[in-house]
Amino acid sequence: MEIFTSISSWQNWRNVIPSTQNVGLVPTMGALHAGHQSLITRCRQDNDICTISLFVNPTQFNDENDLANYPNTFEADRKLCEAEGVDAIFFPDYSELYPDDYRYRVSENEVSPLLCGTHRPGHFDGVLSVVMKLLNLVRPQRAYFGEKDWQQLQLVKGMVEAFFMPLIIVGCPTVRDIDRLAISSRNLHLSKRHREKAARFPKILAAQAPAEEVARLLEADGFEVDYVQDFKGRRCAAIHCGGVRLIDNMPLYEGNQK
Amino acid sequence: MEIFTSISSWQNWRNVIPSTQNVGLVPTMGALHAGHQSLITRCRQDNDICTISLFVNPTQFNDENDLANYPNTFEADRKLCEAEGVDAIFFPDYSELYPDDYRYRVSENEVSPLLCGTHRPGHFDGVLSVVMKLLNLVRPQRAYFGEKDWQQLQLVKGMVEAFFMPLIIVGCPTVRDIDRLAISSRNLHLSKRHREKAARFPKILAAQAPAEEVARLLEADGFEVDYVQDFKGRRCAAIHCGGVRLIDNMPLYEGNQK
Repeated sequence: MEIFTSISSWQNWRNVIPSTQNVGLVPTMGALHAGHQSLITRCRQDNDICTISLFVNPTQFNDENDLANYPNTFEADRKLCEAEGVDAIFFPDYSELYPDDYRYRVSENEVSPLLCGTHRPGHFDGVLSVVMKLLNLVRPQRAYFGEKDWQQLQLVKGMVEAFFMPLIIVGCPTVRDIDRLAISSRNLHLSKRHREKAARFPKILAAQAPAEEVARLLEADGFEVDYVQDFKGRRCAAIHCGGVRLIDNMPLYEGNQK
Repeated sequence: MEIFTSISSWQNWRNVIPSTQNVGLVPTMGALHAGHQSLITRCRQDNDICTISLFVNPTQFNDENDLANYPNTFEADRKLCEAEGVDAIFFPDYSELYPDDYRYRVSENEVSPLLCGTHRPGHFDGVLSVVMKLLNLVRPQRAYFGEKDWQQLQLVKGMVEAFFMPLIIVGCPTVRDIDRLAISSRNLHLSKRHREKAARFPKILAAQAPAEEVARLLEADGFEVDYVQDFKGRRCAAIHCGGVRLIDNMPLYEGNQK
């Protein structure tokens, strides 16, 4: 497995991959877990070469504390990638990936301000801008994103269409813990008590009730609710539990039937 | 010479060009003149295949009248391209190029608000966004832009670097009429009297004097001045002459020596 930290070494490697070989990319912010693992598995199935990027992207954090507290687990990430058969890790730092110091950005003005965008101003500009950079550097045939970040997945798909980028964005199902909590690197920040309590989030979100009612149920359970909203066939929600922000979403029929 | 109006027919053609062949692109808004001609000549010299796009991009017009009055000369453009040995014209309409209806855009926040950006809010967002689309659709090894639009040229170069787009932006010298007026499709809108008067614009701009003094000289000559400003080694200016907006720029040493 190769590890590249500089753009130039990455490009030297990328440029000699024959065009007959399909390349897949799993873009991540590190702190890899079972969710990422499922993306890597799918990426390996679909492509000749499986690459992963590890980059905690500062431009998508609207809260400096949130950025400072983001888990940094490179050694564990490297081992997981090795074990999962990743071919190359791209692990650049900010100055490599942002030679422009974020003077240039990609934005979207309809979906971006909704849901998580309301609570995290500028978040999706940062996401779209870094994804554009990574996709141009890796030039994959396919890139893999989790459905857990449903709004992000829709925005990235839209960007690829709007700018005619020659690849397929593959959305992969949310991986859940045994108690149904969606797996997230942020779960590491939950105390034992709050981790137990967090399991009620997906259960309440699956309630057969209007979104407003689900928001009331979550609040009644002691969660601070950012939003519960139906969006593109999904019921999406963001809450705070013991100071940790958690997001989740479910297909609408599931929300209505279960 | 091929002419494509749909993205899909364009892509079918583009996708079968072997990777051993270099492709050049001259992005234009049509109304082709000697300036474009020089870009085509250079593009043919440098590349195996010379392509040109003709698209009057509405998102870069902040003034609806300006857009409505933009010259539309497709038949003449087609003939010029044929005579100059262009291999393919890409001539899409808005709905083809903007499936997103401009929900997604590329912007830059430091250079964009200056000079022309001050007087044409949103102009460079439109330019960068459409250039990103065209470059991704054409995937050229080189793209050609005139130095006449100096600020645009710097911004496009910056975008290509910031997003690691795999091509070279080639800036080509401004082509001037016999009386030194920079050739522009907007010159067609000048009355005979104002066309004569416009020739004083490059002459005054070349004066050996500070930018503020040059602005005063232009105003004393009866031009309405948007700005005269030194930027990245050039003296740049925009004026109005008989209701027509004209821009020009010159290397600073020339402005200081001549």
